[in-house]
Amino acid sequence: MLLRLPGEVEMNIRSVADRLGISAGRLERMLGRIVRSSDWPEPRLLRFDKAISGIEAGTVVFEDGEIAYGYPKIRRAMMLDPAIRRHFSGGVLVEEKMNGHNVRVARVGGKTIALTRGGFVCPYSTEVAEGQIPSGVFDDHPAIVLCGEMVGPKNPYVPKDVYSADSMDFILFDVSRKGKRDMEGSKAAHAIAEEYGVKAVRLFGEFTAEKAAGEIREIVEDLGSRGREGVVIKDPENLNSPMKYTSSESNCRDLEFAFRYYNDYGQDFFFSRVVREGFQAAEWSDGAAEFDARCLRLGRSMLMPMRETVEAKISGIEIAQEVEILVRDLQTAADFEEHYRRMGVRAVFDPPRTAPGGHLVKIRRVVMSTNDKTRSVLEGQLW
Amino acid sequence: MLLRLPGEVEMNIRSVADRLGISAGRLERMLGRIVRSSDWPEPRLLRFDKAISGIEAGTVVFEDGEIAYGYPKIRRAMMLDPAIRRHFSGGVLVEEKMNGHNVRVARVGGKTIALTRGGFVCPYSTEVAEGQIPSGVFDDHPAIVLCGEMVGPKNPYVPKDVYSADSMDFILFDVSRKGKRDMEGSKAAHAIAEEYGVKAVRLFGEFTAEKAAGEIREIVEDLGSRGREGVVIKDPENLNSPMKYTSSESNCRDLEFAFRYYNDYGQDFFFSRVVREGFQAAEWSDGAAEFDARCLRLGRSMLMPMRETVEAKISGIEIAQEVEILVRDLQTAADFEEHYRRMGVRAVFDPPRTAPGGHLVKIRRVVMSTNDKTRSVLEGQLW
Repeated sequence: MLLRLPGEVEMNIRSVADRLGISAGRLERMLGRIVRSSDWPEPRLLRFDKAISGIEAGTVVFEDGEIAYGYPKIRRAMMLDPAIRRHFSGGVLVEEKMNGHNVRVARVGGKTIALTRGGFVCPYSTEVAEGQIPSGVFDDHPAIVLCGEMVGPKNPYVPKDVYSADSMDFILFDVSRKGKRDMEGSKAAHAIAEEYGVKAVRLFGEFTAEKAAGEIREIVEDLGSRGREGVVIKDPENLNSPMKYTSSESNCRDLEFAFRYYNDYGQDFFFSRVVREGFQAAEWSDGAAEFDARCLRLGRSMLMPMRETVEAKISGIEIAQEVEILVRDLQTAADFEEHYRRMGVRAVFDPPRTAPGGHLVKIRRVVMSTNDKTRSVLEGQLW
Repeated sequence: MLLRLPGEVEMNIRSVADRLGISAGRLERMLGRIVRSSDWPEPRLLRFDKAISGIEAGTVVFEDGEIAYGYPKIRRAMMLDPAIRRHFSGGVLVEEKMNGHNVRVARVGGKTIALTRGGFVCPYSTEVAEGQIPSGVFDDHPAIVLCGEMVGPKNPYVPKDVYSADSMDFILFDVSRKGKRDMEGSKAAHAIAEEYGVKAVRLFGEFTAEKAAGEIREIVEDLGSRGREGVVIKDPENLNSPMKYTSSESNCRDLEFAFRYYNDYGQDFFFSRVVREGFQAAEWSDGAAEFDARCLRLGRSMLMPMRETVEAKISGIEIAQEVEILVRDLQTAADFEEHYRRMGVRAVFDPPRTAPGGHLVKIRRVVMSTNDKTRSVLEGQLW
């Protein structure tokens, strides 16, 4: 049973299904619905659009039949202390949670590629990964999948100035292998990072489950005050799934960004962040001044950007998300534009400007719904 | 074509459909789905569960074939000035918007009854309406439908201490007639109120469309500072639909109430109130201190009640909504309990206590979802 991929590539459905642990008939029925094929950019692949039968969303089957499983969702602690005590027994490792976009980097057909969370080959992330990850990792471990975060001011998905990166850096936080569902954990990732000189997430240390919540509170408060996101809590022996926990400042910065485009975001985005703050205030028993500061921060993170959006629109300015990428190769910018188009993102790419390190390209994403809603309210439309 | 209502009452479908302005076949197909019959409490009736074909939700057809149309939804101005200029031409009347529950009071089969927004006969509202509305209104105008708000500290739906009411008062704001879809407007309502001594909403005055936004801002700020809700803006000649506008304090008090039961409310409830604040801050060009006060008020209105809920749960207290009613007749309390049961509200009614003016009954509604969610988070469950 052969599947003809676009571009005359054939794939043996039965053997792929076998390796995925599902029946060939089931995989066939998924094709074109849950499983989509892609012939651009290279390599050709099948991509799982949704999670199914224990196969993570974003799982990819390359044309050579190799599989890169999707990176599993890390669940969130709402109350640190009970969550840690419930999920871990001995000690826990605490690592910094980076604020960028999750990629998996692997060597396929002799080339390094970076896959997004959803299983798309991102041309820009791929260029960054090629430049930053020494090829020796893949020479020695051809099946390795490096899981990390792309962070920095030139990250077009999540631009952040708080990292030392000039443009966009790859920061390793876990490793896996092609064909394997499981992650190898923090220790394996740091060992690889050290051996090959790959940047890796900061490891704050190992704490007992009893003491961890107190230590993490201090770490997270410090991270928050420096504009960083939060932590991921892992089992040292990699026996339990990790969990994440974020700073109040990070929750509020999410809101600040989203309320600028208030009508283009899901309401659960807003709600979940407010609820996190409520639990954190309760767990950390905020004093009166701290609690007022938290309330003011939360209120301001919603009203300030929304007010600015309305005021901008009153002044006749169109609401848009502006980001910038820095590419070494002009072709990468062209490919990234095509990548956006295929993902259904509507954006305008400015002509590249030469800059130290390559070419800068400004990208403007129009936020249609917020523009339309704000205009209609300013024209007196009722809610 | 006769429809047999429960309790052996027959209704002529064709003549009811005629009066509703729809085909008999269409009405028949709606029965049991969009249109539901009720035989308790009296009078027997058909009730429109949803709006359809220009018939408002809450529209009721009594067993005698008379119709009380649902009270139309009043839309909300997000930006006062453009909304008023767009929707009104000459002047506007500004009335206080009361914060309680909307009822329609009519005489049916010789008895005064109060219908909720959804078209249920509410036994408690009915008792209040019977006691407060002089029967002369209905003697002189047998077809009149008095549209008003039930407000006060003993309102079980929306308990509010800010009105002069000791328990629950009926406050008239519009009038209609059985069989008529349209409201007769502010002037007609105030004339009826004056003639028969019925309490009516406060009328702040008439303003030109050009000056109204400025005047209303002052009125709304004053109302807000006194714990009141906001205003309804009406056409003096009743030619255009009214619109409503609320104070920041009222938006925040809504949030304060809802976040106490954060997991039992829809997320659009939260989102819409934050968005109102964003537009108000922009339209009123808050100064720095005012804006900070608004942000703090907003943040606190969400975090304070949610924190208290979490802390209560930590102390082992079950989260519940406690309200109280004051009934003249013990049977009314029993009927109100049955009314809740039929509406699917899970509540525990305490035994009545004798009090000046009748009997006090405490009602506890368990908020299951918030209780369960909070407990699971406190037990370390991840989000």
